Amino acid sequence: MVPDQPAFADAPLVTTAPAAEPVRPHDIGRLTIQCADQPGIVAAVAGFLAEHGANITELGQFSTDSENGEFFQRTVFHCENVADRLAELDGDFAAQVGRRFGMTYTFTSAASPKRVAIMVSKYDHCLLELLWRNKRGDLDMDITLVISNHEDLRADAESFGVPFVHIPVSRANKAEAEARQLELLAGNVDLVVMARYMQILSAEFLSAVGCPVINIHHSFLPAFAGAGPYLKAKERGVKLIGATAHYATANLDEGPIIEQDVVRVSHRESVAELERRGAEVERSVLARAVQWHCEDRVMTYGNSTTIL
Amino acid sequence: MVPDQPAFADAPLVTTAPAAEPVRPHDIGRLTIQCADQPGIVAAVAGFLAEHGANITELGQFSTDSENGEFFQRTVFHCENVADRLAELDGDFAAQVGRRFGMTYTFTSAASPKRVAIMVSKYDHCLLELLWRNKRGDLDMDITLVISNHEDLRADAESFGVPFVHIPVSRANKAEAEARQLELLAGNVDLVVMARYMQILSAEFLSAVGCPVINIHHSFLPAFAGAGPYLKAKERGVKLIGATAHYATANLDEGPIIEQDVVRVSHRESVAELERRGAEVERSVLARAVQWHCEDRVMTYGNSTTIL
Amino acid sequence: MVPDQPAFADAPLVTTAPAAEPVRPHDIGRLTIQCADQPGIVAAVAGFLAEHGANITELGQFSTDSENGEFFQRTVFHCENVADRLAELDGDFAAQVGRRFGMTYTFTSAASPKRVAIMVSKYDHCLLELLWRNKRGDLDMDITLVISNHEDLRADAESFGVPFVHIPVSRANKAEAEARQLELLAGNVDLVVMARYMQILSAEFLSAVGCPVINIHHSFLPAFAGAGPYLKAKERGVKLIGATAHYATANLDEGPIIEQDVVRVSHRESVAELERRGAEVERSVLARAVQWHCEDRVMTYGNSTTIL
Amino acid sequence: MVPDQPAFADAPLVTTAPAAEPVRPHDIGRLTIQCADQPGIVAAVAGFLAEHGANITELGQFSTDSENGEFFQRTVFHCENVADRLAELDGDFAAQVGRRFGMTYTFTSAASPKRVAIMVSKYDHCLLELLWRNKRGDLDMDITLVISNHEDLRADAESFGVPFVHIPVSRANKAEAEARQLELLAGNVDLVVMARYMQILSAEFLSAVGCPVINIHHSFLPAFAGAGPYLKAKERGVKLIGATAHYATANLDEGPIIEQDVVRVSHRESVAELERRGAEVERSVLARAVQWHCEDRVMTYGNSTTIL
Repeated sequence: MVPDQPAFADAPLVTTAPAAEPVRPHDIGRLTIQCADQPGIVAAVAGFLAEHGANITELGQFSTDSENGEFFQRTVFHCENVADRLAELDGDFAAQVGRRFGMTYTFTSAASPKRVAIMVSKYDHCLLELLWRNKRGDLDMDITLVISNHEDLRADAESFGVPFVHIPVSRANKAEAEARQLELLAGNVDLVVMARYMQILSAEFLSAVGCPVINIHHSFLPAFAGAGPYLKAKERGVKLIGATAHYATANLDEGPIIEQDVVRVSHRESVAELERRGAEVERSVLARAVQWHCEDRVMTYGNSTTIL
Repeated sequence: MVPDQPAFADAPLVTTAPAAEPVRPHDIGRLTIQCADQPGIVAAVAGFLAEHGANITELGQFSTDSENGEFFQRTVFHCENVADRLAELDGDFAAQVGRRFGMTYTFTSAASPKRVAIMVSKYDHCLLELLWRNKRGDLDMDITLVISNHEDLRADAESFGVPFVHIPVSRANKAEAEARQLELLAGNVDLVVMARYMQILSAEFLSAVGCPVINIHHSFLPAFAGAGPYLKAKERGVKLIGATAHYATANLDEGPIIEQDVVRVSHRESVAELERRGAEVERSVLARAVQWHCEDRVMTYGNSTTIL
Repeated sequence: MVPDQPAFADAPLVTTAPAAEPVRPHDIGRLTIQCADQPGIVAAVAGFLAEHGANITELGQFSTDSENGEFFQRTVFHCENVADRLAELDGDFAAQVGRRFGMTYTFTSAASPKRVAIMVSKYDHCLLELLWRNKRGDLDMDITLVISNHEDLRADAESFGVPFVHIPVSRANKAEAEARQLELLAGNVDLVVMARYMQILSAEFLSAVGCPVINIHHSFLPAFAGAGPYLKAKERGVKLIGATAHYATANLDEGPIIEQDVVRVSHRESVAELERRGAEVERSVLARAVQWHCEDRVMTYGNSTTIL
Repeated sequence: MVPDQPAFADAPLVTTAPAAEPVRPHDIGRLTIQCADQPGIVAAVAGFLAEHGANITELGQFSTDSENGEFFQRTVFHCENVADRLAELDGDFAAQVGRRFGMTYTFTSAASPKRVAIMVSKYDHCLLELLWRNKRGDLDMDITLVISNHEDLRADAESFGVPFVHIPVSRANKAEAEARQLELLAGNVDLVVMARYMQILSAEFLSAVGCPVINIHHSFLPAFAGAGPYLKAKERGVKLIGATAHYATANLDEGPIIEQDVVRVSHRESVAELERRGAEVERSVLARAVQWHCEDRVMTYGNSTTIL
């Protein structure tokens, strides 16, 4: 094995070529577009960006079909002070490209991380994974708020300097609780993450909150419906347990899938151990899904997703 | 990377220590037992084998619970001419150990590979994987017969020297077809493998065939019920597709799971490509399940399995 | 689990929307380009294709760096009778785009699968995997020839209708053997696959053969140098064994990596079993690498690869 | 093929049935033994435990070879107040079983978690993973101390209530620094974990510390020797990056491997992103290795390991 352990000093582990000046987030823009596939899109977008002094550094593209498909594109580009020019670009693009092709599109800047609220109940693993990755700089977002229907995780959130709001939810007060949540969220965040929030959000809430909601879910092959899925999985001898991160929709857990993963288990794991392994998968799957979302990589189409 | 490519000669790739005489299959025995967990089992079994001149070379054990659990054990042992002494061992074991502990147990010999019939329809991938692994010596079994409700795969089976029997199945003749299948199978094989056999076997068939039946099945997280599962999976943006090998039971596809695996996919795969990836997983999952079964590694308990 | 097994008939497993006329391979083109990254590339290429009546259906792009990077693009497009127009497109592209940007580029047509020769010694697993996938239509290439330094696998190759040429190699005749191989290969094939060919190809051979050569190799973390790698791996208790497919270069096994994969093992596997698991990984890794190459997805840059 | 059970991890047996009174750690014992394989071992051990009122709840066994192999066994058993009776059991076992078979063996109790010291430099990911899992009750050990050659991670350690000792290391003071480390460690801990401690521990230190030392290491297929391995890996286009946890030996990074894992990467990841992915694998691989060690699952033999 390669020694990365110099005998007497902490040598830098990786030696990259002498870096040029790193690019400021202020100068990094992203453009995502979606429309019916048709000739000339790529050329038009590339031309627009070139004319506006933007240098494309990353481009992902996908078309669902060669005929009558839906077209998706994500572009990362460098452009001086783009963070201050988003409105201008947006207007120009509409006039010069967007309307012509009937596009849905968004310009964002790396200087404005998504504002994210995390909803959680009592399980801490997903919440802590997000807080920790964010703190270490691995997951660029601005966690503005943790909302919970329990007090249990207040200290965890606050130790990261994140405000924690306890909003109890019962059968009786559910509508009122959602109203209070909406007061805090609607218009104030760009994303809500259900990090094992064990309450169903109503269709009304999802519609009123005005931003995407990502949920994380244990998953099996096949699914085991109803309560006690780990026990049911155990009782049939499953060899894989997994997790699915998806956008929440009115149809509960049937929204577009962003990311999935599994781990291998055997007859030796108890139900409690299956749950622990499941929790490990959940936290890494959720973290990846949130990261991709925050990097504007995820576009939805019908009930499906394209990750660029 | 390690050169395994000597410049001028095909040197053996692996040099193990000078091997002792390899053990003859005739001298290799296997004992599997299952019973309520209770003190003294391991000692009694080990004592019995020692007294009968058997040297344990592999031992797997599992108990479902520390209190009132079910106990499973698989032992591989060397014992001269054990292939000729199975009946004797069986009788002695019953008298000295088995009855005392209320065990279900089986002695087998490596000299008698399982007799296996493969049932198949039109997809060739699972059939060919089994035939090929068997031919290369990687999967020790005696494939005595391929039964299909179509003629399509006759040449494939026969090119491996395996008899192929075409038994058409229609709504009208299903009972008669199963009767003909049973004539060929019951008492003549130790295992039936449904290698993408696209007909439901009746509960009567499963009961009459007198040996385990292994089935292979595409699997998703979550399952997509009904026809066209790959299309449905595509439409929800699944990121993993998989396969499950299980014992067939009267409840269709809900029998004890032997093995599962998945592969990662993305929005870029078409439905046809998802099916192709699914076929790849199916063949490796089925091959592993059949191999474990043929090596007496799989024991069932309720609707679950223990793999030792 | 989802029943894909209708009771009385082999219903189609997947129901896609009523397909439009499938596109003829004759009408499918691919363009790969590589050059120093610079503004306007994407627009120029897209413009060129649009003007030539080509409809882009798949586009992959990558730039190694935002400043002074190397740019890679792979485009799949539909264009009537493109198979007959490759020379015309090639010339036009040089004049209108290629020279301006200093591009290396290639037009190919799906109607002309790559002509592939497979070199093999005695291990059959990689050879058979390629032959089989090709026969099933999963791996689009034209296998024109199998060359071996042994007679062992003649029947295997010929059973697929592929010519088999035995060219013995010894220390004495190596140069002569390579000359004979080159006679068969140079100018006649687009790709050579070393499917466990246990001879080192000389730098002269690699230079004279005039097409890429893909090799497959067992791999470990870390590597175990010298003879008997599986034994060495066993002796250090490795938990993963893997395989690497790469382009062969004069530096033996240090060429650009196309694909890698691993499987999990434990102390329970014997050296022979490790080798068997290794062989399984080798065949799937090699098959994927060959497929990506044949689909013009792999571009090399320095000693690295970009897979689009 | 041996069933692929990466999760030898996580032991206590399955609790499906509504649990009886949970067993007190005070009543849970573990016995690990190792000796030349010979007839009668299993029976003798099982007999001894039965006579001493111990009820075996988990048994793992492995023999390296059917002839002249090395034998390993791990037993978990329930026995009232075993935590107070370890010395008695140890003496009795020596007299009745251990000496006869020439065994190395150890009795431990679940009531005495291993005392663990963590050595770390500046990377926090491995340290935090261990602290966090320990805090959540997922990793049963008693973290008594964090030693670092830098001040950077003091707040992290102390926020978990774990003492942090800063011992700077330079070329000049290395011997003295190790002496100070040994003062804190030798006799006071059962395990030292190098959680990205970027100094080489001398052979003298390893010998004097008197307990096992686990190290974590990035790993590739193949290895990339020398400084800057991630850059080298990037430059060859590796598709997998991984990590290896192993016991530290005088031969630096060539000690017995406990656990390994990999993640898939592509040409799209920058060197910095490869390092981030590598860090993720490192923390999960190290956590598993430490857990297995703390559960007495890992036995070494020559330079290899058996995980039971």
